[in-house]
Amino acid sequence: MSKKVAVILSGCGVYDGSEIHECSAVFVHLSRDGAQYQAFAPNVDQMHVVDHIKGQPSEEKRNVLVESARIARGNVKDLKDLKVSDYNALIIPGGFGVAKNLSTWAVKGKECTVLKPVEDSIKGFHAAKKPIGLCCISPVLAAKILPGCEVTVGSDAECEKWPHAQTAGAIKQMGCKHVNKQVNEVHVDVKNKLVTTSAFMCNGSIHEIFDGVGEMVKAVLKMC
Amino acid sequence: MSKKVAVILSGCGVYDGSEIHECSAVFVHLSRDGAQYQAFAPNVDQMHVVDHIKGQPSEEKRNVLVESARIARGNVKDLKDLKVSDYNALIIPGGFGVAKNLSTWAVKGKECTVLKPVEDSIKGFHAAKKPIGLCCISPVLAAKILPGCEVTVGSDAECEKWPHAQTAGAIKQMGCKHVNKQVNEVHVDVKNKLVTTSAFMCNGSIHEIFDGVGEMVKAVLKMC
Repeated sequence: MSKKVAVILSGCGVYDGSEIHECSAVFVHLSRDGAQYQAFAPNVDQMHVVDHIKGQPSEEKRNVLVESARIARGNVKDLKDLKVSDYNALIIPGGFGVAKNLSTWAVKGKECTVLKPVEDSIKGFHAAKKPIGLCCISPVLAAKILPGCEVTVGSDAECEKWPHAQTAGAIKQMGCKHVNKQVNEVHVDVKNKLVTTSAFMCNGSIHEIFDGVGEMVKAVLKMC
Repeated sequence: MSKKVAVILSGCGVYDGSEIHECSAVFVHLSRDGAQYQAFAPNVDQMHVVDHIKGQPSEEKRNVLVESARIARGNVKDLKDLKVSDYNALIIPGGFGVAKNLSTWAVKGKECTVLKPVEDSIKGFHAAKKPIGLCCISPVLAAKILPGCEVTVGSDAECEKWPHAQTAGAIKQMGCKHVNKQVNEVHVDVKNKLVTTSAFMCNGSIHEIFDGVGEMVKAVLKMC
């Protein structure tokens, strides 16, 4: 029996949705490792729509579920219908959509709230002792929901390679343990069955991000 | 000196733009093989916007260049500024955007026209004897612009695995040679320096498409 993995998307595009290449890497690695996957997304409006050339919000409105369908080639389900019992693991790729549509991290930082069906999913897989894979900014969701957990978002030392290193500091302030890791490495919190990797928190080459996400997928499937 | 490859995008999402996973595979393989890449797209309205859950057009308007920036993480240039002399090769991923925004193939089939800057790019790289890589539906652009060329879009025998096999027939009717190939194979037209592969013309697993695109990238770089 092949393993079944639920993947939660948050839109389509790094600045207001899921980071496209992280999602693609998740799907490619799951497929190669013989797992089945099903994409889910919340049926809510995006916080905003960002013109990805200007890097600035436009006047448009878009729906997270509908835009996520672009990455899922149409095959995405409403997150409210995700049943933990139907899947062996959960993966949430990164992108600003995690911090804007799945939570209020982009606006409130460590005082953020997490969208109810996202919180329910993470708590549900955690309670069922099923592994959860997170990359890029999505480890902050675990830091918020699973107090004291261990994660990596790459490095806590800000530099050209790690432009978002302050996120590691915020995670520590939330009472969690942050572990520095290279872009091709994961951190595994064995107790909480959490697998995290930096992905595009690192200013690395796209094939390095692809490989790091691959390590995350492998470690998640191993724990199933 | 690393090789420089221009990649023409056609929006963001399989049904009205570039096929996201083909683009991601192109970038990952180019990066791994040590090549530099620059994304380009025409600054024109999309033919239409498709709701990727319903599979039907919505009332929205979107711009091909702006939406392509989602795949390119903001780093995309107007196709009118592409200079053949600045690059060693050209790659055009698939998706309905090729047939709707870069050409009128979706509406007119073999009687289609190709958007001027796209036609100029293909003719320019061809005249300079620089390789061109095409996948999925984008080989029809070469069939239209380079009479008598050889391409593959997978198989000419329609079945569950090859739902779009009639495209091969149309290519033959245009006076070009269609060569049947598996999803993990490419066809190389040595004379025209064209490398083609089926990608999502095949109803295959996403990692098979990823690998087929990788073969295309390798063959293109080898010919540079």
